[in-house]
Amino acid sequence: MHALRITRAQDFPEWYQTIVRDADLAELSPTRGCMIIKPWGFGIWEAIQHELDRRIKAAGCENYYFPLMIPLSFIAKEAEHVEGFAKEMAVVTHHRLKNINGALKPDPESELIEPMILRPTSETIIGDAFSRWIKSYRELPLLMNQWANVVRWEMRTRMFLRTAEFLWQEGHTAHADEAGAREETMRALEMYRSFAEDFLALPVIAGEKPENERFPGAVSTFSIEAMMQDGKALQAGTSHYLGTHFAEAQNIRYQDKDGGLSLAHTTSWGMSTRMIGGVIMTHGDDDGLKTPPAAAPKQIVVVPMLRGKPEDGDLKAYCAAFAQQLNKLMAFSAPVRAHVDLKDAKPTDKRWDWVRRGAPLICEIGPRDAAGGQVSFLKRNALRDGDKIKTHSLSKDEFVAQAAGMLEAAQRELFEEAKTRTYTNIRDDLKTFADIEAYYGTGEDAGFKGWARVHWARPAGAELEKVGERLKALKLTLRNAPLTQPSSFGACIFTGRPAVEEILIARAY
Amino acid sequence: MHALRITRAQDFPEWYQTIVRDADLAELSPTRGCMIIKPWGFGIWEAIQHELDRRIKAAGCENYYFPLMIPLSFIAKEAEHVEGFAKEMAVVTHHRLKNINGALKPDPESELIEPMILRPTSETIIGDAFSRWIKSYRELPLLMNQWANVVRWEMRTRMFLRTAEFLWQEGHTAHADEAGAREETMRALEMYRSFAEDFLALPVIAGEKPENERFPGAVSTFSIEAMMQDGKALQAGTSHYLGTHFAEAQNIRYQDKDGGLSLAHTTSWGMSTRMIGGVIMTHGDDDGLKTPPAAAPKQIVVVPMLRGKPEDGDLKAYCAAFAQQLNKLMAFSAPVRAHVDLKDAKPTDKRWDWVRRGAPLICEIGPRDAAGGQVSFLKRNALRDGDKIKTHSLSKDEFVAQAAGMLEAAQRELFEEAKTRTYTNIRDDLKTFADIEAYYGTGEDAGFKGWARVHWARPAGAELEKVGERLKALKLTLRNAPLTQPSSFGACIFTGRPAVEEILIARAY
Repeated sequence: MHALRITRAQDFPEWYQTIVRDADLAELSPTRGCMIIKPWGFGIWEAIQHELDRRIKAAGCENYYFPLMIPLSFIAKEAEHVEGFAKEMAVVTHHRLKNINGALKPDPESELIEPMILRPTSETIIGDAFSRWIKSYRELPLLMNQWANVVRWEMRTRMFLRTAEFLWQEGHTAHADEAGAREETMRALEMYRSFAEDFLALPVIAGEKPENERFPGAVSTFSIEAMMQDGKALQAGTSHYLGTHFAEAQNIRYQDKDGGLSLAHTTSWGMSTRMIGGVIMTHGDDDGLKTPPAAAPKQIVVVPMLRGKPEDGDLKAYCAAFAQQLNKLMAFSAPVRAHVDLKDAKPTDKRWDWVRRGAPLICEIGPRDAAGGQVSFLKRNALRDGDKIKTHSLSKDEFVAQAAGMLEAAQRELFEEAKTRTYTNIRDDLKTFADIEAYYGTGEDAGFKGWARVHWARPAGAELEKVGERLKALKLTLRNAPLTQPSSFGACIFTGRPAVEEILIARAY
Repeated sequence: MHALRITRAQDFPEWYQTIVRDADLAELSPTRGCMIIKPWGFGIWEAIQHELDRRIKAAGCENYYFPLMIPLSFIAKEAEHVEGFAKEMAVVTHHRLKNINGALKPDPESELIEPMILRPTSETIIGDAFSRWIKSYRELPLLMNQWANVVRWEMRTRMFLRTAEFLWQEGHTAHADEAGAREETMRALEMYRSFAEDFLALPVIAGEKPENERFPGAVSTFSIEAMMQDGKALQAGTSHYLGTHFAEAQNIRYQDKDGGLSLAHTTSWGMSTRMIGGVIMTHGDDDGLKTPPAAAPKQIVVVPMLRGKPEDGDLKAYCAAFAQQLNKLMAFSAPVRAHVDLKDAKPTDKRWDWVRRGAPLICEIGPRDAAGGQVSFLKRNALRDGDKIKTHSLSKDEFVAQAAGMLEAAQRELFEEAKTRTYTNIRDDLKTFADIEAYYGTGEDAGFKGWARVHWARPAGAELEKVGERLKALKLTLRNAPLTQPSSFGACIFTGRPAVEEILIARAY
């Protein structure tokens, strides 16, 4: 018996919904397509924010906050951009409610002259500010970031992966020339790669998106892609070189050193609450989540075996002192986060709550353990021996001495396990489109397939569209052309022409 | 000559707009009534968030995130609540844009069956979740908080003080009975008082709002009120006991210990970016802001006197090492935040930028200082001697030894100065309404008046409404009845009846 009522093998999508709910991560809200993020899920987001914000600031970016509502005319300025987002815009049209015949309705007299859209991303309103702020080369590069909620009216939503409202950070930078902007684009991409791998133990492949998967308005879009346990790809962060498209649309010009007026080159890059979906589908098992220790809101949970008797007071005090001792340790260059669970619930229910949430180390301490200075604990990362739960025991002093090491080892093990799964499931032996068809089939078989890394001639325009359609019939998509490429190529599996790079193909979220 | 082009004495409102812009705090955005929060302003908000979040969590509250968009029917559930907010709701009515005759417009076919409002506050959607989550007394108290943006369509806006969108935290709790809920209401109020005074050096008076100033739907509303340098009051945080109003409207019931079904008692409490307006109007002077050191994004700024010569490299390295040494110190129980300003600008422009922003200690280091191990610096808190700028000098070692102490002393001095100003400007000698009229006049004279603490019989209903109108004619409002009250009272200045408490009267933001 596992802690979740459904296993990954039985029904992966249903398992995903179950773990999201049972691990206290999130639940559906009464607002269509939006979720309520619950404490354990939000705690992981806070950990992500804290660490990613540190890395963003270390790169010289400063945090700003721009308005949620953007005048409609702004969004229309960059043609491709509006084309890409117009179909999923939440539009504010009134600013007052009124009781009309006994029902509360938007007051017709409060209709806005110019409707506002809720930001799906902020290039347009930030570009407008850049055009006012940037006067001379001395102000460049201008490096900014904001943490914000964004709204995209998606028709099919799935918690964390695709919701009508989500939380993210969006970096926006302006540079004097293409070289500077491209360097920043790649810096952000590498920041995302190392953050995903080091902090969330998510192995990812960084590369460039094909033309048909670019951000609306971008010259080049790069992504990191992660393989989920069902073999599908998840785009986990993107970085865009926008060229001078937005600078032209919004008149971002600066006086260069020679006194001439030049267009700035801009970039943007974002990472969102979607990452939590990636963590779940990479590190979840049939007992719940294995939260990567670096990102776990509580890394060590102490469950006192209370019995509703007078001696409970001593046990609580003992556990509090133990947690305090643990909180003085350092792991992942930060203080350890230990927690004593004093909720009014049975100890065994608490154990399973923390197993489902994936607290990395779960200590259970009864009066006898306290008297003997022993700690009995579970490692979430290696919970079972066969079907049975594996309990470890150490003296309190030994536990304290080893705790940080155990957390860091668990983080490495999670990463290595996922990395092996990813890299052993990228096929590089599919040499023709017929091979692809034979291997993937039509997608009706939901079995694990992984990815393929194939040679292609980088077709463009209508030819690329046709490639997209052929793949779509197999429920496949082009993911990215990895940054690391071989020195020579075979024939393009789509066109038969000599290939110029390798690109990843996968079913995807 | 002062660093701002306008002084407080010349025009306080205009001075406020000037300091907001010139201290890099915020600027107006193209979205009506909304602002762009800039790095120094946002950095103060980040410091507020970090410290207030720590205090909120220490009180046992957990962070959640609820949707921005709330279905219209939710807001209608609590009658007083909707009455209070209906006039300032941003309403989302469409979810797609369409090119119609060459112009981008809300697509009529995308009209929502039920419009959504942007949260002005979240009692309704959170109460709905409470009604699903709370089943038994074991789940109580339920203590939650969220950090979020909220939207209230204000007609007259002023940066930080009143904007159509603002950032805040909102705490929401549910309890088994009135005693528990009232205790939480007062805990949050005391948290706000101590946070405002300790962290932002804002002296405040905590008390209960009169009936006509209650939060829509609350049984009791408490606030902290701070006196600005123009003598006006700023409501700087509120805490509400909501009784069972929202529990009734949303069916928040729990099974009590005896198996019966009882209504929960709820509270809510919030503090917002408005606090930054309070910091400005309390600690600003004619040279800019004096940022309270505990909340300053950068507490010590090092300006190297670069000359565009080869020896600049050595000076930069020296300053970087100096800042690193300072960053190892602790002040206000946290690591010191030192920063080397390497921007491409003249050292004297940098000095004045940091004076306007109010970095607490500004060090200027030239090659000779570096060679001699000297630090020449300004204390923003005591910038001038008469009209002249006062420069201090210490050996580097002495500066490092004294830095944390200087920051903490500056924080105390800011608080003491503001506290003296506040407490010496609350008149308790106005015994009749005629006294009030004589002292305050009609409000056309914009001179400093401060507050009055007057006796009143706590009139209610229509009688209170009339009191409100009499005060409004003098541009005055009732602020709060301070928690600390004398043991006996004179006659009510409004009704002549025996008074039951003292209440504060002031002009207000």
